[in-house]
Amino acid sequence: MRLVSYRRRNQDGTTGSAGLALNRDGELTDLGPLDLGDLLRAGRGALAAAVGRGGPALDPAAISYRPLLPQPGKVLCIGLNYVDHAAESPYVTVPDYPAIFPRFSSSLIGHGEAIVRPVLSDQLDFEGEVAVIIGTAGRHIAKDRALAHVAGYSVFNDASIRDYQFKSAQWTVGKNFDDTGAFGPDFVSADELPAGARGLKLETRLNGQTVQSGNTADMCFDVATLISIASQAMTLQVGDVIVTGTPAGVGFARKPPLFMRDGDVCEVEIEGIGTLRNPIRDEIPAEVRAA
Amino acid sequence: MRLVSYRRRNQDGTTGSAGLALNRDGELTDLGPLDLGDLLRAGRGALAAAVGRGGPALDPAAISYRPLLPQPGKVLCIGLNYVDHAAESPYVTVPDYPAIFPRFSSSLIGHGEAIVRPVLSDQLDFEGEVAVIIGTAGRHIAKDRALAHVAGYSVFNDASIRDYQFKSAQWTVGKNFDDTGAFGPDFVSADELPAGARGLKLETRLNGQTVQSGNTADMCFDVATLISIASQAMTLQVGDVIVTGTPAGVGFARKPPLFMRDGDVCEVEIEGIGTLRNPIRDEIPAEVRAA
Repeated sequence: MRLVSYRRRNQDGTTGSAGLALNRDGELTDLGPLDLGDLLRAGRGALAAAVGRGGPALDPAAISYRPLLPQPGKVLCIGLNYVDHAAESPYVTVPDYPAIFPRFSSSLIGHGEAIVRPVLSDQLDFEGEVAVIIGTAGRHIAKDRALAHVAGYSVFNDASIRDYQFKSAQWTVGKNFDDTGAFGPDFVSADELPAGARGLKLETRLNGQTVQSGNTADMCFDVATLISIASQAMTLQVGDVIVTGTPAGVGFARKPPLFMRDGDVCEVEIEGIGTLRNPIRDEIPAEVRAA
Repeated sequence: MRLVSYRRRNQDGTTGSAGLALNRDGELTDLGPLDLGDLLRAGRGALAAAVGRGGPALDPAAISYRPLLPQPGKVLCIGLNYVDHAAESPYVTVPDYPAIFPRFSSSLIGHGEAIVRPVLSDQLDFEGEVAVIIGTAGRHIAKDRALAHVAGYSVFNDASIRDYQFKSAQWTVGKNFDDTGAFGPDFVSADELPAGARGLKLETRLNGQTVQSGNTADMCFDVATLISIASQAMTLQVGDVIVTGTPAGVGFARKPPLFMRDGDVCEVEIEGIGTLRNPIRDEIPAEVRAA
């Protein structure tokens, strides 16, 4: 099952009502004004019932995409989770415990929306990643039971403001600028993918040029391990998200560095999950907005 | 104005309905099944109207306290924000940019609820702090306008699992064990306190013994500065919380270290805001719970 979170675009260009749609090979069926997180929290029967009820066709040209979960629970992002990316980072060694930092909902955007380069920085970088959506709550989840807690997967671009990421030892600020966390378009239920979304090709392209090319089999901590480790500390709740880290190729590790600019287009494609595409746009300074 | 978030305790010991109450010198007026975050998001008029409507008296013996905001927006915690605490930490220098890490709602508890020492660690430490509740949203908030965005203040015990805090460079896990973030009891509206809650005595006591004794005037980054800096990156939303850091005296920096144990009682008292009191209890291992 594939689902998307949408918002209608009115004929006059303004945005309209939000909802959830079933995606069958690009043909959308409108399930109505539903929220994926609410449906998951209501139990998997609720999601199946909503899909079973169906609805009218929805014209893809008449919608824009919202973040797949506009108001997720906690979003746990994993740093340095691919061996090749850890090697290109300033940290060099492969971690023996995952580096976990947050994404707040205020930073999230949908497929097709602009990733915004803030006025304060030129160091806007891409990070293509697999997102894991928790469907069953738990604490102290054993690794061999962990994948039963996954509702499905999606694509994430963990766009990062590098100079702000490293202004202190904590990465929170550089990872949470407004309009930098692209999430979607598709929710793909876990049954449609290999266990733990393992062995999938992940590719990030900037203006059509491949800049990251990895495979989810190369995670230092795989999906089941991440769920198990995080749940030793925290109850994982339905609608929580784990963003599983990025392979090598990020812009700030290149010589010379490659950062994203107004007018660029960044795509993250993950085999079997989909392609997340976002244009890059400069933040409009307050004094210009006010004029 | 002082408000508390409560849950009724039924006569049979089970918990009942949740709500919000006005606190006048310890006399509670039940405002009904309201959520402080929802009221703030509905505009300050909504909060004033709810208080104006009033309600019946509520017996303090018939309730337990919930986290002041059970489902806050983002919770931004500030590390190393008192000169004396920065000096006792492994980081030694006073930061030139705040270290910001998250608290997720899954870690929050109310006044009187047990802070839980997890089975995985003996290093449960206290951190008494002022919490700032955002009442007006904003981005790029100028420092001299920042305090107008504060709805009020409360008390926070940012109890930390030190070994997990330092397992990676990111402190997220050690700061987010279930049942470690104590928040409350009172919301104190900003008009009842000095601007920016500045110049207030802050004291943490473990089993009646004073272990932290500081003053909010000694923050490296004061409340207005924190709001201004965070909002350069992120839109601050109504119901977001900034937990402003702790003064010196924490347990892991002591020689020998002082950690909290089952049966202990930890209190954080902040002048003019109130006293947050929590017993410490060991986590019950799953195999014992299952037996």
